[in-house]
Amino acid sequence: MAHIQLPDGLPGIRGPMAFRPDTAKPLNELAQALLHAPNSLAAAEREIIATYVSYLNDCFYCQTAHGAIAAAHMDQDEELVKRVKADFRHADISEKLKALLVIAGKVQRGGKHVTSEDVEEAREAGATDIEIHDTVLIAAAFCMYNRYVDGLGTWAPKDMEGFRQRARRTASAGYVTASHDYLYPK
Amino acid sequence: MAHIQLPDGLPGIRGPMAFRPDTAKPLNELAQALLHAPNSLAAAEREIIATYVSYLNDCFYCQTAHGAIAAAHMDQDEELVKRVKADFRHADISEKLKALLVIAGKVQRGGKHVTSEDVEEAREAGATDIEIHDTVLIAAAFCMYNRYVDGLGTWAPKDMEGFRQRARRTASAGYVTASHDYLYPK
Repeated sequence: MAHIQLPDGLPGIRGPMAFRPDTAKPLNELAQALLHAPNSLAAAEREIIATYVSYLNDCFYCQTAHGAIAAAHMDQDEELVKRVKADFRHADISEKLKALLVIAGKVQRGGKHVTSEDVEEAREAGATDIEIHDTVLIAAAFCMYNRYVDGLGTWAPKDMEGFRQRARRTASAGYVTASHDYLYPK
Repeated sequence: MAHIQLPDGLPGIRGPMAFRPDTAKPLNELAQALLHAPNSLAAAEREIIATYVSYLNDCFYCQTAHGAIAAAHMDQDEELVKRVKADFRHADISEKLKALLVIAGKVQRGGKHVTSEDVEEAREAGATDIEIHDTVLIAAAFCMYNRYVDGLGTWAPKDMEGFRQRARRTASAGYVTASHDYLYPK
C-alpha cells in the first residue's frame, strides 16, 4: 500500500501524478524533452539509458515501463533491453551508446563520479556535447523519478502485456499526451 | 572546467540551463511548483529540505544557493541553516519539519528506505498527505539537480555575497522569472 492516499487503479508514477497535477506537468514535460522530442540520439537509445539507470536504482516500475518503451521503439526487441541491463558492454549497441551508459552509471552513483576520461571516451566514440548533456540529465532525472515512485511506496502490475500496450502508445504519442490521460482517464 | 562547452560566466545549474533551454523550462517550472508556489509548508521549510538533501549529496553549489534562499525567507538566519545541516534533530525547527527531514534523508539514499513508520511519525507531527508527497518529490528532485550540476563538472563561486543577493531575488520573484534571466542575461 502506498504511503499516502493516492487515486485508485493507477500504478507507479501515475498515482502520484494524478494526485498532484501541478508537479505532474513539469515532470511530464521534462520526460518529453529528454526522451521523445527530436534528438540526434534515437528515442530507443534514450529509453535504454533511462531503463539502465532505473535498473541500477532497482525501481521495478520504471525499468519495466521504460524497458517496454525502448523495445516498442525497436520492433519489440525485449531481448536487447535485457542484455543491456545484464551486461551492456557485450550487447549489440553502438560504442557511443556504451560510452554514454558508462557516464549514466556514474551519474547514478553521484555526479562527481563522472571523470574527464569518461567524457573523452564518449566524445571519441562520436558523442556530441548535447548528447553528453542529455545523457547526464536523463540519468539524473531517473534518479528522481525512481525515488519518487519508490519513496511513496507505489504499486506496480506484474502483467507484461499491460506494460507493452501502454509502451506502444507512449512510444508513438509521447509523454505530454500520455500525462493528459493520467489526469483525465477515460 | 566543465565536461562540455557551456556559456561563460554562469555558475552551477545556470550554465547547463542556458546551454539547453528546452530542458531548463520544465526544470525551472518543477522548482517553482515545489519550492515557491503557495503551499501549507512555508517556502523556508521547503528550501531547508532542498538544502539538506543537497548537503547529503555533497553538492556545493546547490546547498549554498538553496541555503541562501532558505535564509532569505527567514530574515537572513544563516545560522539556522548551518544547524539543520549539522544536526537537524537539535535545530530550532518544528517537530513536523524534523520528521519530514528524516523522510527526505531516506529518499536521498533511495526511495525504498522510506518506511511506513517514518510516514506515520510525520503524520503524527501534523504532516498532511500533500506535505509528505512534496517532501518526497523535493528530495527526489534534488537528487536530480545535484547530479546534473556535478555530473557536468560545473563551477561555483566562493563569494557568499553573490549567493545572498541572488537568493533574495529568487526568494521574492521565484524560479520561473529567475530562469528567464538565465536565458536572457542582461
